Amino acid sequence: MPAAVETLLYEFLDEQIHQASDLPELALFAHLLRDMIAAGGKRIRPVLCVVGWQAVSDREPPPAVWRVAASLELFHLFALIHDDIMDASETRRGEPTAHRRLAARHPGRDDAPTLGINAAILLGDLALGWSYELLHIASPDPTGLHLNRAWPLLNALRTETLVGQYLDLVSAGPVSAAPPDTVAARRAIRYKTAKYTCERPLQLGAHLGGAGPHLLAALSSYALPLGEAFQLRDDLLGVFGAPERTGKSVLDDFREGKNTVLAATAYQRATPAQARVLRDGLGNRSLTPAEASQMRQVLTDTGAHTAVETLISQRHEQALAALDHAVMRPEAAAALRAMAAAVVTRTT
Amino acid sequence: MPAAVETLLYEFLDEQIHQASDLPELALFAHLLRDMIAAGGKRIRPVLCVVGWQAVSDREPPPAVWRVAASLELFHLFALIHDDIMDASETRRGEPTAHRRLAARHPGRDDAPTLGINAAILLGDLALGWSYELLHIASPDPTGLHLNRAWPLLNALRTETLVGQYLDLVSAGPVSAAPPDTVAARRAIRYKTAKYTCERPLQLGAHLGGAGPHLLAALSSYALPLGEAFQLRDDLLGVFGAPERTGKSVLDDFREGKNTVLAATAYQRATPAQARVLRDGLGNRSLTPAEASQMRQVLTDTGAHTAVETLISQRHEQALAALDHAVMRPEAAAALRAMAAAVVTRTT
Repeated sequence: MPAAVETLLYEFLDEQIHQASDLPELALFAHLLRDMIAAGGKRIRPVLCVVGWQAVSDREPPPAVWRVAASLELFHLFALIHDDIMDASETRRGEPTAHRRLAARHPGRDDAPTLGINAAILLGDLALGWSYELLHIASPDPTGLHLNRAWPLLNALRTETLVGQYLDLVSAGPVSAAPPDTVAARRAIRYKTAKYTCERPLQLGAHLGGAGPHLLAALSSYALPLGEAFQLRDDLLGVFGAPERTGKSVLDDFREGKNTVLAATAYQRATPAQARVLRDGLGNRSLTPAEASQMRQVLTDTGAHTAVETLISQRHEQALAALDHAVMRPEAAAALRAMAAAVVTRTT
Repeated sequence: MPAAVETLLYEFLDEQIHQASDLPELALFAHLLRDMIAAGGKRIRPVLCVVGWQAVSDREPPPAVWRVAASLELFHLFALIHDDIMDASETRRGEPTAHRRLAARHPGRDDAPTLGINAAILLGDLALGWSYELLHIASPDPTGLHLNRAWPLLNALRTETLVGQYLDLVSAGPVSAAPPDTVAARRAIRYKTAKYTCERPLQLGAHLGGAGPHLLAALSSYALPLGEAFQLRDDLLGVFGAPERTGKSVLDDFREGKNTVLAATAYQRATPAQARVLRDGLGNRSLTPAEASQMRQVLTDTGAHTAVETLISQRHEQALAALDHAVMRPEAAAALRAMAAAVVTRTT
């Protein structure tokens, strides 16, 4: 399933290069996006979009559904590129982040890091614009499905993602500026991950298939707890994961002072000595690997690590229970059960 | 004419706030965009779009045309917000730039400047997304005009703007890193201003009105030299203008080391002593007003200032000559002549 989406994306990017043959700079940008797609990614949003269609219809998904699925992946590239700038991340999918790759094109310049960041802002803008362009260059769908139907959900998804990222930004940083806070962390998760990664993509496919309000609500009851579990797992992988599998550094979340449920729970339960370790480490841009080890020890010793694992299991069960009560095609329900299992146990 | 566009934009922003009543952060963003609209702006792109329609049709522009015009203005807000981040500009339309306003919300935090920049990246992303949303929430145009017709030109406009901004970025900076270069400056102008500000908005309106390839080409022959004149005037106002009228600092272009035709011409003609002044000043982030005065003297003494004025007059004449050969409604041709005069003599 992801292969069909990748083919669509590569074809689209090649077409953009072809159309603007007098703009070599555009080819540079398009190739960077191609490389990011080729470097990996779980394609969870396109897959959920297609499963959403399958929840309603036993027909093969028509071209319009694949196009929305591919659009979601291109939107996701935009979000990753801008997030990596904001988080000052150095690696993504095991490769240097877009701003670092763009900076590396100007080795002789003192201002190369800034140049790389500014060029990556533009690259993200381009991916965002193209995610909508991809919906419009389509010839009319032979099944008569109108892509304009997708628009209200795409608008909600974009707004929620951007607001979620703002919540994330404001609650990150050193403890003195932004004390760890589980309520704020849960709110950011809701918008930035649960709705963006799970609920909206699934609803988009189902809506294109003609789902009524009951099914859309049932899919939401599955997707929101699953999305929360997804992010809680992400937070654990962000500090306890294997970088060679996740493609991300295990220092970034600490250095950024990311306000995770994990860090906030540890801070709540910490002894004064443990709290000091967290205060020294969260938002510390020059944190060393040895200091990060100490931080991980505190996350474990306070029981925060275990508490988050428990939360993940609970959210997983809630998601499965929602499926028990939903009326949808059994093949789609089975696929959603399998995806839930994969999401909560993933190591990448 | 601009008032109709502003009303549409305010209604749209209010509707977004209303729809997401559980997201106070969204209201913050929408109000910042409202404030930027209220603070000023020439609305040149929406006006050209409407005149493009009038070049073809003697009917009142239908709602679809106003909507595309408003979309262009919202897109422009996006471009300004991200450009101001890249240029590290402090004022825009006489007010603090978006990243400074967003930073000012966190007075107690050491990381407020970075937080402001990151939040403004998101604000720009939101404006970009909304510029397309604005086209989709419309009820079907009673005249049967399909907004999807606008899409290929909107896509070209976006790509050209982003590539033009990249060309601008790469050619800016201290003389040692990015020597002033008139060829590169002219290429950046073509994409970032001539096509984005003049050619594409005018063609959009005309295309919606049903213009054929001859008229679209004639409008391009008018708009490209006019757009070049617009940017050359902008570059002069950027260093010689009255900040209380332009709303911009007269230090920003120097500090950024912007590769303008003005600076590049002066550098080509400079004596060794004059070249030293330019080298010390271009890209110098801590340039003082006194040093900026010296720079202005060099721009005048080398004859670069006069040379750019001559170029503006030539481009103005080219634009008018293109109108003489074009077949379009005379009211529209008269409006375009008046706009050309306003563009080249403007002081804001």
